[in-house]
Amino acid sequence: MANTFKEASTEEINQIMQRSHAAFEIFQKKSIEEKSTFIDTIADEIEALGDELLQKASAETNLPIPRLTGERARTTSQLRMFAAMLREGSWVEANIDTANPERTPLPKPDLRKMLIPLGPVVVFGASNFPFAYSTAGGDTASALAASCSVVVKAHPAHAETSEMVYGAIKKAIAKCNMPDDVFQHVHGNSFESGKALVQADHTAAVGFTGSTAGGKALFDYSAQRKNPIPVFSEMGSINPVIFLPDTLQKNAADLATQYAGSITLGMGQFCTNPGLLLAVESPALHSFLDHLSSGIEAVQPAKMLHAGIHSAYEKKSHAALAQAGVKVVQQAATAAQDIEALPTVALVSGETFLANPLLHEEVFGPYSLMVSCKDEQELVTILKSVSGQLTVTVMGTADDLNSHTKLVDLLPSIAGRILFNGVPTGVEVCASMVHGGPYPATTDSRFTAVGINAVKRWVRPVCYQNWPDSLLPLALQNANPLNIWRLVDNEWKK
Amino acid sequence: MANTFKEASTEEINQIMQRSHAAFEIFQKKSIEEKSTFIDTIADEIEALGDELLQKASAETNLPIPRLTGERARTTSQLRMFAAMLREGSWVEANIDTANPERTPLPKPDLRKMLIPLGPVVVFGASNFPFAYSTAGGDTASALAASCSVVVKAHPAHAETSEMVYGAIKKAIAKCNMPDDVFQHVHGNSFESGKALVQADHTAAVGFTGSTAGGKALFDYSAQRKNPIPVFSEMGSINPVIFLPDTLQKNAADLATQYAGSITLGMGQFCTNPGLLLAVESPALHSFLDHLSSGIEAVQPAKMLHAGIHSAYEKKSHAALAQAGVKVVQQAATAAQDIEALPTVALVSGETFLANPLLHEEVFGPYSLMVSCKDEQELVTILKSVSGQLTVTVMGTADDLNSHTKLVDLLPSIAGRILFNGVPTGVEVCASMVHGGPYPATTDSRFTAVGINAVKRWVRPVCYQNWPDSLLPLALQNANPLNIWRLVDNEWKK
Repeated sequence: MANTFKEASTEEINQIMQRSHAAFEIFQKKSIEEKSTFIDTIADEIEALGDELLQKASAETNLPIPRLTGERARTTSQLRMFAAMLREGSWVEANIDTANPERTPLPKPDLRKMLIPLGPVVVFGASNFPFAYSTAGGDTASALAASCSVVVKAHPAHAETSEMVYGAIKKAIAKCNMPDDVFQHVHGNSFESGKALVQADHTAAVGFTGSTAGGKALFDYSAQRKNPIPVFSEMGSINPVIFLPDTLQKNAADLATQYAGSITLGMGQFCTNPGLLLAVESPALHSFLDHLSSGIEAVQPAKMLHAGIHSAYEKKSHAALAQAGVKVVQQAATAAQDIEALPTVALVSGETFLANPLLHEEVFGPYSLMVSCKDEQELVTILKSVSGQLTVTVMGTADDLNSHTKLVDLLPSIAGRILFNGVPTGVEVCASMVHGGPYPATTDSRFTAVGINAVKRWVRPVCYQNWPDSLLPLALQNANPLNIWRLVDNEWKK
Repeated sequence: MANTFKEASTEEINQIMQRSHAAFEIFQKKSIEEKSTFIDTIADEIEALGDELLQKASAETNLPIPRLTGERARTTSQLRMFAAMLREGSWVEANIDTANPERTPLPKPDLRKMLIPLGPVVVFGASNFPFAYSTAGGDTASALAASCSVVVKAHPAHAETSEMVYGAIKKAIAKCNMPDDVFQHVHGNSFESGKALVQADHTAAVGFTGSTAGGKALFDYSAQRKNPIPVFSEMGSINPVIFLPDTLQKNAADLATQYAGSITLGMGQFCTNPGLLLAVESPALHSFLDHLSSGIEAVQPAKMLHAGIHSAYEKKSHAALAQAGVKVVQQAATAAQDIEALPTVALVSGETFLANPLLHEEVFGPYSLMVSCKDEQELVTILKSVSGQLTVTVMGTADDLNSHTKLVDLLPSIAGRILFNGVPTGVEVCASMVHGGPYPATTDSRFTAVGINAVKRWVRPVCYQNWPDSLLPLALQNANPLNIWRLVDNEWKK
């Protein structure tokens, strides 16, 4: 859907980032209670928008209301999780090494370390999560929790929804007496505006969720700066799923039901959509494919997020299906209309897959490629050949795991999250979640975009040497006024 | 000193990195006790080289034996610190979120997270620390502690010293039954060998200590890879020191003694050398400069590390002194011979400094520039104008701090370590140390090159979802067999 918001110019963007920096200097000095109340209030104000927000988002993205209701709940609980993290306080990783003036040959100084914010963060929201990874989504919530100011570039595919959420944030800013520019909202469709946001002097870090091409472009813009800055792009993934023989033999029908659902959930428009299915050739595999076909056949095509995503799906799925050796296993029985996606499962041999890099590429949508391997060795070779992934999943029985230790050992090297007997779609928001992985899943595998550790992308450690106690940040003062966990002379204490 | 070691070709480097990856796969499966014993044994074997190592290093680097004796102790204690960190075990940041099958609308899965190694790490050692930041220095020690294999490119200025340390590591490999290629050692003087090491398929991360140009080149080589990898370059810094008026008035002589020592310690060849001194114009400032002059005048010039560093010092210090408005305050009385450095302090006005970017550049050696500011506002403007720093120091009394809160508030934004009433030279190795800072101090301000947190550069989190307990890494198993601190359902437990 085309929107009519005015594109920000490079000059405007530089001014926006300058204002963001000025607001950052005020915001970072607010108390923990003021900051956490502000983040909670954003959640409240989003809820206060009521059904109108859901209707607007549904109109812009074609996502159904129940899905958007769930995503809104996730977005507000994510905000409140970061507010709670601030109040608990230990996330700053306070370390204290006390002085030893008697040490020879040199006295030991007093050293104290904690995490501090990087500065203004630019967030590029995702088209497929108009709430949870967009305007007030995980990147914004974690950056505000880090005491960074935020500038969001609204995703053009849901710019009006983004404006509504921005309105909620503005209300929270006013209610909580925060600097107006602690959160700013810009529109832009062009490469120029993205480049200007990444390259503005005052931009300190960038968060992005979207395509590999887009995420890599932002990474390159940063590398071209006179002072490169952290860019965390969460990009593509084909999320391999391995079906081991014993479970295929015993549970073909159940596995097929589970995966027909996961492949087509939300018309496959998830970063964690299972795009690559792997198994060793066997009669049980064909039984699984028969069951999977029934599942896929029955799925009702639905509209994709926008025309651009739909045409990319058409183009990429047709290109994949046109490769030599690739056979369609099943498509949905109902024809796709307008910008609807046609759910599709295809089949190829391990040998052909290994020889054709195009088949390793993500087809964003309800598409999955089953690779039938001649033996376990070929399956392992395929796993080693795929690039970095957000997730990798193994479906198996206890017997399967015991007889495939080499394969199982390999999994952590491939992805940020490894799953057993589940589906990769559905990303829990908690401390243990890793929504990340080796390139090109993300531009830096050392961080996660989901869960409380997402805040670590926007902070850096600072060490205070022999600093007077009263001038130290509260987190580092002797009396531990925040009552947080700290590593003091190598012991954890509260 | 020219060495005769053969330059590794690109093809050889690709093979070296392939072997490094094969060794990594074996090494990472060794037990914690095996790995920590290996790291301890490297320290033992370095000590077993005895005085011969010190003599070789002194001959290659011109550093005196007492300094090298101290640096060797730092290197071995650093290795043992990482071995102790492994045995304690909590550094893996284990998080557990237990399942809740009753949750609606969707059951909550069991999620567990810990840090795992990135893979083979390439280390480019520093010329100025032949032990502590070279072959078995902080980058190597932290990478081995992370369970990464290591390939060191020997610094050509102390290639024979590096060979000796490599010999010690080889003995430790044999004694501890580690894979031969867990540590490899290559020689190379050319850009090509550095580029090949960064761009080899199997290289997973890079550690570098040295010049801004060198560190940035490695960063750019990585950005050009089809899959960019983490590059941590610790580069230049001018380490500003602010002298506040009350302490200048009261302690001019003592401050001058302290700083004449710090500026010329090790002929100024430290990353943390105080290259920029800042104060507001006053009679006390001139009294301080008079005292500082006496100190500098008396310093005996000594040989720099090698001819290349000496000629760079000559060139950069002469260029700085030739700038309009820059006056020599004092140089050492004894003339510099051969590749000796001539200790030098210069003076410039705040206005001139602000207008001339060349004066903001590091002059690596015993050189420091005093900037006389017309008022506090100008001093703050100067602090905001300098680029990212490893350290920033404030010298002051309690009164000084109380009357300069704006300036003091600014300091954490500039550097990785902020000091009060001390000298930046001397980097303590402990949990609270941050040897890092915003670009160009390093290529990523979110990490440190010194202290136990240096290990974080070489690891990434992995999440295990619904994984069978017996197949989990020990750090994540229910029974907590390693007895480490873990965040379990958002509570710290052991």
